[in-house]
Amino acid sequence: MPTLRLALAQVNTTVGDVSGNAALVRDWCRRALDAGAQIVAFPEMTLTGYPVEDLTFRESFVAASRAAVDQLASEVPPDLAVIVGYLDADGPARTGSDAARDRGPRDALALLHGGRVAARYFKHHLPNYGVFDEDRYFVPGDTLTVVRINGVDVAMTVCEDIWQPGGPFAVAGRAEVGLVVNINASPYELNKDDVRLPLVARRAREANAAVAYVNLVGGQDELVFDGDSIVVSADGELLARGGQFTEELQVVDLHLPAATSDDTGDFGEMLVARTALPALPELPGAAVAPRIEPRLGDEAEVWGALVTGLRDYVRKNGFRSVILGLSGGIDSAVVAAIAVDALGGDNVHGVAMPSGYSSEHSLDDAQESAKLGGLHFTVQPIGPMFDAFMANMNLNGLAAENLQARIRGMVSMSLSNQHGHLVLSTGNKSELAVGYATLYGDMAGGFNPLKDVPKTLVWKLARWRNTVSPLIPENSISKPPSAELRPDQLDTDSLPPYEELDPLLHGYIDLDMGSAALKAAGHDPALVDRVLRMVDIAEYKRRQSAPGTKISIKAFGRDRRLPMTNRFREGV
Amino acid sequence: MPTLRLALAQVNTTVGDVSGNAALVRDWCRRALDAGAQIVAFPEMTLTGYPVEDLTFRESFVAASRAAVDQLASEVPPDLAVIVGYLDADGPARTGSDAARDRGPRDALALLHGGRVAARYFKHHLPNYGVFDEDRYFVPGDTLTVVRINGVDVAMTVCEDIWQPGGPFAVAGRAEVGLVVNINASPYELNKDDVRLPLVARRAREANAAVAYVNLVGGQDELVFDGDSIVVSADGELLARGGQFTEELQVVDLHLPAATSDDTGDFGEMLVARTALPALPELPGAAVAPRIEPRLGDEAEVWGALVTGLRDYVRKNGFRSVILGLSGGIDSAVVAAIAVDALGGDNVHGVAMPSGYSSEHSLDDAQESAKLGGLHFTVQPIGPMFDAFMANMNLNGLAAENLQARIRGMVSMSLSNQHGHLVLSTGNKSELAVGYATLYGDMAGGFNPLKDVPKTLVWKLARWRNTVSPLIPENSISKPPSAELRPDQLDTDSLPPYEELDPLLHGYIDLDMGSAALKAAGHDPALVDRVLRMVDIAEYKRRQSAPGTKISIKAFGRDRRLPMTNRFREGV
Repeated sequence: MPTLRLALAQVNTTVGDVSGNAALVRDWCRRALDAGAQIVAFPEMTLTGYPVEDLTFRESFVAASRAAVDQLASEVPPDLAVIVGYLDADGPARTGSDAARDRGPRDALALLHGGRVAARYFKHHLPNYGVFDEDRYFVPGDTLTVVRINGVDVAMTVCEDIWQPGGPFAVAGRAEVGLVVNINASPYELNKDDVRLPLVARRAREANAAVAYVNLVGGQDELVFDGDSIVVSADGELLARGGQFTEELQVVDLHLPAATSDDTGDFGEMLVARTALPALPELPGAAVAPRIEPRLGDEAEVWGALVTGLRDYVRKNGFRSVILGLSGGIDSAVVAAIAVDALGGDNVHGVAMPSGYSSEHSLDDAQESAKLGGLHFTVQPIGPMFDAFMANMNLNGLAAENLQARIRGMVSMSLSNQHGHLVLSTGNKSELAVGYATLYGDMAGGFNPLKDVPKTLVWKLARWRNTVSPLIPENSISKPPSAELRPDQLDTDSLPPYEELDPLLHGYIDLDMGSAALKAAGHDPALVDRVLRMVDIAEYKRRQSAPGTKISIKAFGRDRRLPMTNRFREGV
Repeated sequence: MPTLRLALAQVNTTVGDVSGNAALVRDWCRRALDAGAQIVAFPEMTLTGYPVEDLTFRESFVAASRAAVDQLASEVPPDLAVIVGYLDADGPARTGSDAARDRGPRDALALLHGGRVAARYFKHHLPNYGVFDEDRYFVPGDTLTVVRINGVDVAMTVCEDIWQPGGPFAVAGRAEVGLVVNINASPYELNKDDVRLPLVARRAREANAAVAYVNLVGGQDELVFDGDSIVVSADGELLARGGQFTEELQVVDLHLPAATSDDTGDFGEMLVARTALPALPELPGAAVAPRIEPRLGDEAEVWGALVTGLRDYVRKNGFRSVILGLSGGIDSAVVAAIAVDALGGDNVHGVAMPSGYSSEHSLDDAQESAKLGGLHFTVQPIGPMFDAFMANMNLNGLAAENLQARIRGMVSMSLSNQHGHLVLSTGNKSELAVGYATLYGDMAGGFNPLKDVPKTLVWKLARWRNTVSPLIPENSISKPPSAELRPDQLDTDSLPPYEELDPLLHGYIDLDMGSAALKAAGHDPALVDRVLRMVDIAEYKRRQSAPGTKISIKAFGRDRRLPMTNRFREGV
């Protein structure tokens, strides 16, 4: 049985940074070579980053990607077989009703060897649901590329190709390959790793071939990619597994069956094309011991996603530091903790902005939060600004409450403009869902780490994080939540308890359940009517809020597209 | 030759308002009946409004649409053939990788007659470019529905079906029909009417049949639908045409060939199914004279789109009045004029917010603008609030400039919260493109009528509107633009002249031209580098701005999807 040494490079690319991504490939190729690998595979769209969205329509961007892959072929070690993703096109993008669908932009894979592009593959299955819009951008490939490497037939596939039965993996099985490589940009969702391993194993059995699944890692806008690269044998046994949210190289020796077929042409769902590489160097003596990294627990996994999402949003946008309002409450304390873990306390600036309605313990808790995180802390009372507005305008009730939140937003933005910090907003998913937040007030900010985190999960994350090391004041966790915009205000004055609210929001938002279905599932009917109405009406606010890392089935902003003007009122 | 009297109901539906839309259908059916019509056709997705986006995934919404069409069948006049659009489904929505694509949600058409649904048709071509995402939502129909009505064969089609050659219209030709009805939700773009008529004529010749094209009218979020319903003969001659941005009924007598074929089954691209209605009542004596409404000029057309978009955004969101800052500059004066035309001066509140840097003429011009529009006008100096911030924080430069804009944003939002007006923001497309605007300052607002209007077009619109009646101060039009955030500031301190900037932005944004292509087209190379960089970096600001009516190929927000974190810098 031939043996191939395969390296999976679970790396963090950046959208649009074609030369930076190429440099990343060169760097990790050297590491793969140092590890004695014969083949190294990188994630989907390595050279362009993922997702490139409407950059696909810009011909200069496609040209830059195509030129970079040719250039890269001459720069990587010639004896190493290097599998990279990139953006290709064999025709113009479809931006109107023009009917041609057999040529156009391609979500492409290139196999580099001997100083040239030795083989190419175009993604066959294009996802067009959830966060994916690939029918908008790409033309599907119709030919499975099989490359003979040191006597083993290896099929090349991209991401969604592995999610559907009967597709490229079934064709790979009929083509009798020994290994299927699948390069991915598969975004994180809570517990997605629990779905991935059985999927990869199922598809290995369908192809009757070992499968090497390599995934992207890192944050891109509201998406975060978790890595979790996987190698399984032809019978679905787990051989190697990468860590979550870590940039790393997985190296594995695969004992694979010798090639048996030379058939090409029509294999049903796809055509099959074959090519062969010149012999790769023999393996160095010692076999490598593949690693199977342990999975993170639920809270650690979410925390990893939030830290990675924030760190990369800050870094990839050219910021080095962040500023946030520290109220002493749980949300801002948790955001401060995420920021400290992402950037280090020295790059985090907390500002307490007390008003006349701020309780004494609030400032103490804010100070404690800053102390635990080792972050910069200042106090900026908002009384004089509030008084100036109130003395010159005739405001009361909600307008006066919102005014305080907006002054705090302005103070944060002014400090951002003055010192160059990115402003973090701190509203959680539950309050954003029901509109319990002030537009241009506490919703102001460049990024919101908690945008997709329900309040009950904020508490869980805080408790879990403090088991690692104390970072969030116990009092911020245990006290009843309050916006402190009027005397003795509590969230429960306006909202049901979060233990009741969050499951209802999960049903309505993540699961698309309607009013009747939610009531049938046991939610209090009056509460269902009240909450659904609040969620529907708050849509316009959420459209104008900061981006934030997606961790759930349906994050606001990224993959929930609803009309802002919508008269459909469930149960009303 | 049989004659059919057909009415096209160019109406304004509301997304989600299923019962309201059904009432609208009943009302316009009565008008059609009063006009002696035998058939009346309504726009695409009549009962649900368009576009419904992710409401498609909620089973309760699909059920409401299906129930409403059955109910409506029993409520409309039984002798009238009523063609309505609605949301149907014969299987669950596709929200993941599940492979079934032959059942699911449908963009559907129902023919109501005799108290029941007499025929149905499912849209065949699903657009998935520009503002359209229909591959995300719908399963395409594969069967053309042909209905014999008083001896004439009539084929039913929906929207995109008419934009592609070789599809349902070609099949209709092979099925030898006399008339093709096409129901639409076709959004406005500048000069789209110039494209539509030749398209409809071309498709009539392809089908060798008369074509009746009915379109939606009205605003929905950032989209505006312009009506422009069209009837052409089989040789493409224009017989009737609806107005632009007007709710109206077009009635036309069509002399059509008697049915010649009973063939059903496979017609190539689609199957053909046939059914027949019982005889409809004979026509009353007098023939109707079809109307061909004149087209609007370019500026009048854009103005109509902006007025309609604002009026419907305000109304459909349950507001009755708007408030905006009146600076005395061209942008706010034009927004005030649009608001006056949309809502009447009595529902428009202008507030001047002078600072120490506001010139004397600014307040005069603001006052003049209010006087011309007959709107409510107040003056709210921002000096005391500005001083309170400056005395308590250490701010200068850009931070101090932005502070003034943000205080104005807060004053507007406070007045909105206090009195219930919707805040209009007034930044034009050119300044939003290059980021020459303050986030949470002049960008704050619930809606921005100029979001998709380049500055040079703002001037043209102002001059045109004043030819109808004086509404915009001449001084606001003629003076050089300034943000007035520091002494003697002019836009040209930071930006190239708008006459140079706007064509460059059009190439980069609307036409997806890259740096090299723009330079080759004659734009100054240094300017290209500078402006493209500004546009790329301002993406994050635009993501957090108010919605606004789309009038161009690529409006910000609606149909330009770019990564916020993007390192691709054209020409840098």
